[in-house]
Order: sequence, then C-alpha cells, then structure tokens
Amino acid sequence: MVKSRQWLLNAKATGLPTIEGDNPTFKLVETDLPEPKDDEVLVKLTYLSNDPAQRGWISKDADPDRLYVPPVKEGSPMNARGLAEVVESKSSSFKKGDTVIASTGWSEYAVLPAKQLQPTPDLPGGKGKTHYLGALGLTGLTAYFGLTEVVGTTSDDTVVVSGAAGATGMMAVQIAKNILGCKRVIGMAGSDEKCKWVESLGADLCLNYKSSSFEEDIKKALPAPDGFANVYFDNVGGSITDLMLNRMAKYGRISCCGAISNYNNSGDATYGIKNWFEIIIMRLQCKGFIVLDYMDKYPEAREVFRKALEDGKLKIDEGEQIVKGGFEDVPKTWLQLFSGGNTGKLVTAIQ
Amino acid sequence: MVKSRQWLLNAKATGLPTIEGDNPTFKLVETDLPEPKDDEVLVKLTYLSNDPAQRGWISKDADPDRLYVPPVKEGSPMNARGLAEVVESKSSSFKKGDTVIASTGWSEYAVLPAKQLQPTPDLPGGKGKTHYLGALGLTGLTAYFGLTEVVGTTSDDTVVVSGAAGATGMMAVQIAKNILGCKRVIGMAGSDEKCKWVESLGADLCLNYKSSSFEEDIKKALPAPDGFANVYFDNVGGSITDLMLNRMAKYGRISCCGAISNYNNSGDATYGIKNWFEIIIMRLQCKGFIVLDYMDKYPEAREVFRKALEDGKLKIDEGEQIVKGGFEDVPKTWLQLFSGGNTGKLVTAIQ
Ligand SMILES: NC(=O)c1ccc[n+]([C@@H]2O[C@H](COP(=O)([O-])OP(=O)(O)OC[C@H]3O[C@@H](n4cnc5c(N)ncnc54)[C@H](OP(=O)(O)O)[C@@H]3O)[C@@H](O)[C@H]2O)c1
Ligand SMILES: NC(=O)c1ccc[n+]([C@@H]2O[C@H](COP(=O)([O-])OP(=O)(O)OC[C@H]3O[C@@H](n4cnc5c(N)ncnc54)[C@H](OP(=O)(O)O)[C@@H]3O)[C@@H](O)[C@H]2O)c1
Repeated sequence: MVKSRQWLLNAKATGLPTIEGDNPTFKLVETDLPEPKDDEVLVKLTYLSNDPAQRGWISKDADPDRLYVPPVKEGSPMNARGLAEVVESKSSSFKKGDTVIASTGWSEYAVLPAKQLQPTPDLPGGKGKTHYLGALGLTGLTAYFGLTEVVGTTSDDTVVVSGAAGATGMMAVQIAKNILGCKRVIGMAGSDEKCKWVESLGADLCLNYKSSSFEEDIKKALPAPDGFANVYFDNVGGSITDLMLNRMAKYGRISCCGAISNYNNSGDATYGIKNWFEIIIMRLQCKGFIVLDYMDKYPEAREVFRKALEDGKLKIDEGEQIVKGGFEDVPKTWLQLFSGGNTGKLVTAIQ
Repeated sequence: MVKSRQWLLNAKATGLPTIEGDNPTFKLVETDLPEPKDDEVLVKLTYLSNDPAQRGWISKDADPDRLYVPPVKEGSPMNARGLAEVVESKSSSFKKGDTVIASTGWSEYAVLPAKQLQPTPDLPGGKGKTHYLGALGLTGLTAYFGLTEVVGTTSDDTVVVSGAAGATGMMAVQIAKNILGCKRVIGMAGSDEKCKWVESLGADLCLNYKSSSFEEDIKKALPAPDGFANVYFDNVGGSITDLMLNRMAKYGRISCCGAISNYNNSGDATYGIKNWFEIIIMRLQCKGFIVLDYMDKYPEAREVFRKALEDGKLKIDEGEQIVKGGFEDVPKTWLQLFSGGNTGKLVTAIQ
C-alpha cells in the first residue's frame, strides 16, 4: 500500500481560489492508495501541467449541463494532467520506469487504468519530455487548431494574439508567423519584458495591455482602413476582446480559445462585451472551440511541429517555465497563471 | 421647380432621437428641388420604409471607418428607402406614373439618378407593392439569408428568433418553420398579444421577454440536455442575447442580424454580453452579416418566396403595419420601432 499526499478540492470557488483562511478552496491531505488491479498502473507524479481551464472545473456557479469536462467534486483530489513515472504495472502496455502522460490530479502517486495513460516517445535533439505538457502537448495543439481549423488562417492575414506570452499564445505567435507565414503578427501581453520576448519569437510587434496608452497603442498598431486585424486568437476575453472587436477588418475571424480575464469573476462582476454590434456591421465570425474536438488530427499537427522544429521555426525550450517546489506549493504555483507569473508553459517540477 | 418638405438631420443623436426641444435630432424644412437633368427622375414619395438601421446612420459616436453605409451629415435630409411614383422622367428606363423603390430620404419629392431606382413588377394575387419594402424586400431577404447562407439552418434545428413580431423576425419565423421545416421554432417578442400573433404564423411557441418570468420561461422552453437551441436568429442583442448564449446547444450557430436593444444607448450605457465564455465551452459560432452582401442571390430568394406564397406557406399581408399620417409625423412614426409600436413591417403611408 502506498501513501500519497493529495490536494483535495475543499470548497468550490467563487472568486480567486484560496489556500489559506477559514474555508480554503484546496486542502492538503495524506491518503492510502489502493493496490493496482489488473490492467491498472501505479504512477509517481514528476511534472504537473498548470492550466487556466482547471479554474472552470471548480467553479461554484458552473452549470453542470454546460461543462465539457466533469466538474471536480468537493472532497475529491483536484484534477490535473501530469508527466509521471510508472512505479508498478499490472498492464502489459507499460512497465516500471516508463514515462507517461496521465490525469494524475494533484496527487504524488496515482493508481490509474492503463488505457488512460499516453506513452511519451523520446523527442529529437534530446528535448525534455515536459514539452508533452505544453508546446508539443495540448497548449501547442490548441494554438495550431485554433489558427488553422477554426479560422483558416493564411499568409494574407494580419493576426493578433492575446495572452501571447503564455503557453498557448507563444505557440500561436510562432505558428502564425513562422509556420503559416502570416503578413503581420501582433501579440499582447502583461509586461514590457514579456512583450520583448514575444517579439523575439517572431511577432512583428507586441503590446503591453497594462500600459496606460494601450487603447491608443492598439489603434495605432491596427490603423483604419487597411491595417485592421483579419484574425484574432483570443486567450483572454473581457476588455481586451472588447477593444479588439473594434479593430477587426470586415469579415474578420475571431478564434475564441479562452477568457482567462474572467475566470475568477462571477455573475455580475464579469466584464461585459459592449462592442457586440461590431460583429454585425463588420460581418465578423466568433468561433469557440475546444482542442479535444480535433483529436483525430493531432498526428497531423505533431508532424508539422516536428518539421518546424527541424527547420528552426519553433522555439520551445525558451517557452517553458519549470517551477521547482515541494508538493505543498502546487496550488500556489498554479495560481501564478492568474497573476501573469509565468512566461511560456507553466510546469511544476515535483521534488 | 418643385417645392418639397424634408426632414433634415439637425443634430447627431446620442440617446433616443428627439423631434422637439432645444436641439432636436430632426428638423422640418421646405426646399426647392432642382429640375431633373438627363438620366434623372423626379419622384413623389408614397410609402416610407422604417428601419432600425437608420439609427446607426445618425449616431454621434459612430466611427466612420466602421460604417457600411455613409453616415447622414448634419443639415442633410434624413436617409430612408421608400416606394415612390415617377412624376417626371428624363430617363428612357422610367416613365411618369411608374412605381419604384428608391432611397428618397425623408423628403416628399426627390430628384434621383435613374440607375438608383428599382422597378416594382406587379405581385401575384394583387398583393400591394408596399411588400417590396418589407416581406418581399430587404427585411424578408435579411431573414432568408440570415437563416440559410449565414448559419445553414436545416430541418434538424431548433431555432430561436428574437424580435419575432418585427419585420425581419416574422419572416424568419415563417421561413424557419414553414419553408425550411425546422424541428422547433421559438419566437420572442415584447407583449403577449404579439406572441400569440407570432404563434399564429407558425412558431411552436413565443415568449414575452417583458414578462417577469422570462428567464425561467426560456430555460423551460429550451431545457438541458437535448432541448437547447441550435440556431439563434438575433435581432435584438443585449440581455436577451446574453441569456441565449446560455441556452445554445453544443456547436450552436448565432446569426447576428441586429442589436436594436442597444441602438439608443452609447458607450458605457451599452448592455455588455457577460456569457461570452459560453461561446468557447459550447463551441458556438456567432456570425454577423449584412443582407447587401447577398445581392447576387436575391433572385433565388425571391423565387423561393414566390413559390411559398403560392403554396400558402407565407403570410405577409398580416405582417405589415401601414401608418397613415401627414409628412410631419414621419420621425414620430419611425421612433415607434424603438418602443415596440409595430407588429410586422412598419410602413408610413404619406398622405
Ligand atoms: N479552447 C481550448 O481548447 C483551450 C485549451 C487550452 C487553453 N485554453 C485557454 O487558453 C488560454 C491560455 O491558456 P494557457 O494554458 O496557455 O495559459 P497561459 O497563457 O500560459 O497562462 C495564463 C496567462 O494569462 C495571462 N492573464 C492572466 N490573467 C489575465 C487577465 N486578467 N487579462 C489578461 N491576461 C491575463 C497572464 O499573462 P499576462 O502577464 O500577459 O497577463 C498569464 O501568464 C486560457 O484562457 C485557457 O483557458 C483553451
Ligand atoms: N443585418 C442586416 O442586414 C439587417 C437588415 C435589416 C434589419 N436588420 C436588423 O434587424 C432587426 C429588426 O429590424 P426590422 O427592420 O425587422 O425592425 P422591426 O423588428 O420591425 O422593429 C423593431 C422591433 O424591435 C423590437 N425592439 C425595440 N426595442 C427593443 C429592445 N430594447 N429589446 C428588444 N426588442 C426591441 C420591438 O418589438 P418588441 O415589441 O418585440 O420589443 C420593435 O417592434 C434590427 O436590429 C435591424 O437593425 C439587420
């Protein structure tokens, strides 16, 4: 029997999730895990993926009829994806020592059905397997399909990417500029330093949305009549998206990927999109998507990434921020997503 | 030389346009019109089309870079479409007595280039030519293309139409139910009486959005998990659209036709869409459109309408509200659009 520390969901969240105080969102416990049964595997978490979407799974006001992933129940371990090492296997598909991707949750160890584990073939150039959590995993795929399948981005397009210094955003910028060869690619991020980094990845320009001149900057960067954006890859929602509705060219396409600026709000505190009428007069398309819908096409995207890496068109080692810490810091590290603490994919190394 | 009364735009509008008071939006004047030159025609206005879009053309805060029709200048006659009779013609295409559709503006008489006039062939069954301003004109075409080309509505769809008792809405309801054969068609309108009328046109149900139970009614009418709407034909925007985002089925399509609930607001007073995140998690598509973009296909739609009229699938005589009044009441009648004064197409008969 293995003892494992786990972070449980203690109380569903309304605002910013908490770790301390009276009734914190998360609670650290120690549990005895069951022995793995036939076709099950015991894994030890090594790296944890930090994802804004996890906030949605613990929302107090989320309507269960409208969630694409089942919500986390109070008293259950927090859900999360991680890179893990097989410790004991009752399956012929995996053996001790294998590295796998799995929904381990916030748990040092986990017992899982073998069919829920994904293998992690060695990467060319000796690149770290943590990339399977980010650039070469779901966030990279999100950027790829959000630009290609969702809004059919081509080299003729002027593309704007919000959350450009994040895991998904930094891939969207590079895919748009370096793989699809888009005419102009403009990023938006939360500091001048992040913006410089986004430009170093290939963006023609990156705007700091926290600057007091942001509203003018965005008008200057996307001037009427021919400088408007054709594609907006939206990671953030809220007031930035509202401004962007006003900067889209006729027939512009918005790839609605995320709305992180609103994830910790609720109900009336949510920022309301006021420029809705622009959708009509400029004949815009706003298309929401979930990367999981493109699972059939993951191999095609991975092949594009492989080739782009070979051709030096993708920088991914720079796009990973690995935070080393104790298991007790797992929620604290995750919360950095909402204060802009990360540049590139935020990964927690479990020590 | 002909004398004509005209309603001029006196002052661009911020809130609800005004006719009286210190600095009214509109002002009645009398002018001498020039003689028609070669290829020009003098017409006399007989019926006026009343359109919510006219509000956009006189907005103080409208950005000229983002208008699809040039704004009306202060001191110029208010722009409008009407049915008119040719009084004098210097063109071989039209002769005295012909009835035409033209952008006459709010003007008793107008001198216009012949190439800007549209002929009005007689309608089957002796139907009135005012239908060229509504059901068989732009609002009918808007409903048709908004459902077909924009969001590809099929018989499998549950369709919701807001502003269902208006000119566009009453056609959208009938096209969805009686021509496209949609599974379920639900209207929304501003009174119980209007709702009954919308149901008499073919809607399976019509909800009064002014009822205090509207929020519950809409949940009941579109229940989870299988009762959600696949298509939302949106004439109104604002809080109704916000609620609808919450009632769309996975992969639902929103045909963004209008946002009348916000036309008399400006800037901060505009209702903000708070349920934007639903676009992402439910993979919705919001597609704005302008009917003028489908001009090439008008003949195809007119043919569909002709056949549907023959087959008794379209009620249009009931869908026309002709207000008889003096020319001095033109703005007052137009303003009824914003207080729900009309059922069906609002037409002003100039006496
Ligand atoms: N549709 C899908 O299938 C799918 C899949 C994966 C991710 N997503 C979405 O994509 C977005 C990015 O996710 P990610 O995993 O790549 O995370 P991420 O971008 O690496 O991390 C979050 C970043 O968002 C920015 N941010 C935080 N609060 C903000 C606010 N109030 N306004 C603007 N920016 C804010 C911060 O950067 P700054 O310093 O720039 O503020 C932060 O670093 C999220 O909305 C997520 O839900 C969607
Ligand atoms: N995209 C295009 O190409 C195109 C073309 C034509 C029209 N349109 C748009 O389509 C919509 C309908 O136009 P229409 O010509 O058919 O006019 P209409 O619907 O006949 O007249 C306006 C109706 O809107 C309703 N309304 C007024 N204020 C409202 C509010 N605050 N909230 C909800 N409903 C309100 C009223 O009915 P109730 O009693 O039900 O409130 C009123 O009778 C407008 O938004 C217009 O701009 C778009």
